[in-house]
Amino acid sequence: MRILGIDPGLATMGWGVVDSEGSKCGLVKCGAVITPPDMPIQRRLHHIFLGVKELIATYQPEEIVFEELFFAKNITTAMNVSAARGVALCACADSGLPMYEYTPMQIKQAVTGYGKADKMQVQQMVKMMLNLPAIIRPDDAADAVAAALTHAASGRMKEQFLMK
Amino acid sequence: MRILGIDPGLATMGWGVVDSEGSKCGLVKCGAVITPPDMPIQRRLHHIFLGVKELIATYQPEEIVFEELFFAKNITTAMNVSAARGVALCACADSGLPMYEYTPMQIKQAVTGYGKADKMQVQQMVKMMLNLPAIIRPDDAADAVAAALTHAASGRMKEQFLMK
Repeated sequence: MRILGIDPGLATMGWGVVDSEGSKCGLVKCGAVITPPDMPIQRRLHHIFLGVKELIATYQPEEIVFEELFFAKNITTAMNVSAARGVALCACADSGLPMYEYTPMQIKQAVTGYGKADKMQVQQMVKMMLNLPAIIRPDDAADAVAAALTHAASGRMKEQFLMK
Repeated sequence: MRILGIDPGLATMGWGVVDSEGSKCGLVKCGAVITPPDMPIQRRLHHIFLGVKELIATYQPEEIVFEELFFAKNITTAMNVSAARGVALCACADSGLPMYEYTPMQIKQAVTGYGKADKMQVQQMVKMMLNLPAIIRPDDAADAVAAALTHAASGRMKEQFLMK
């Protein structure tokens, strides 16, 4: 099964495509959709929307996984990231594919076995699980791949994470 | 000039189309895009996206005006409304039309002459300005029309409200 993982963001939206077969996973491709801060907000959102649609068209995933947003920061950041998540969800909804969402803690737990693991621990485990020569950069792409790996590992459990 | 006003929201997104010529304004049509709370979030956002695109195709506005979001409530509401605003902005960006944004206070000031006017005062002034038989319902549609009227009245000032 091919899974597209997305870590939503306005400046940097990480993505990763993983092929999963039984207990084996392979990285197909990962990267980030970047929008510059001096671009008008509506153009940034439109760029993300088109970027996500292009990812789906190019890699033809069967399921899509989002990392759930978590905010400790200020309301303006929360609003911008929520808007970016919104257009990414909208672009995916257009595809009609099943969509899932996991919290950062669920992803850390699934990948490292510890829900409060730090970024570096997650990145190292992703590198090991996929047998990569180096850790994935940028962070957001690594997070998106970790979300896809979480979904691949969730098996029968995953029904509870479906965005219905 | 034809103006599309939008008051962003997830459950109810108000819209209003106004024709402005000199100091005269006429209401073309107004309404709301409604999404039910039991629909998955990604489908609600997609519904709003398609709704806004349809409004632009149907009414062919020359400029688009948003009421800026203002939050005093909880973060979950802020995130949902921000996502809805995001997809509406994205749908409009697709059109390439100039887009503007006014704060609720600017709209109240422009329509009633008082920045802290209540909803009923705004609705009554909108009714009078457009020579309507009754106030506009729902509230969100009236707010969207008020945003469009604010833009019509802003004249040379409006450059500063352009979303660049």
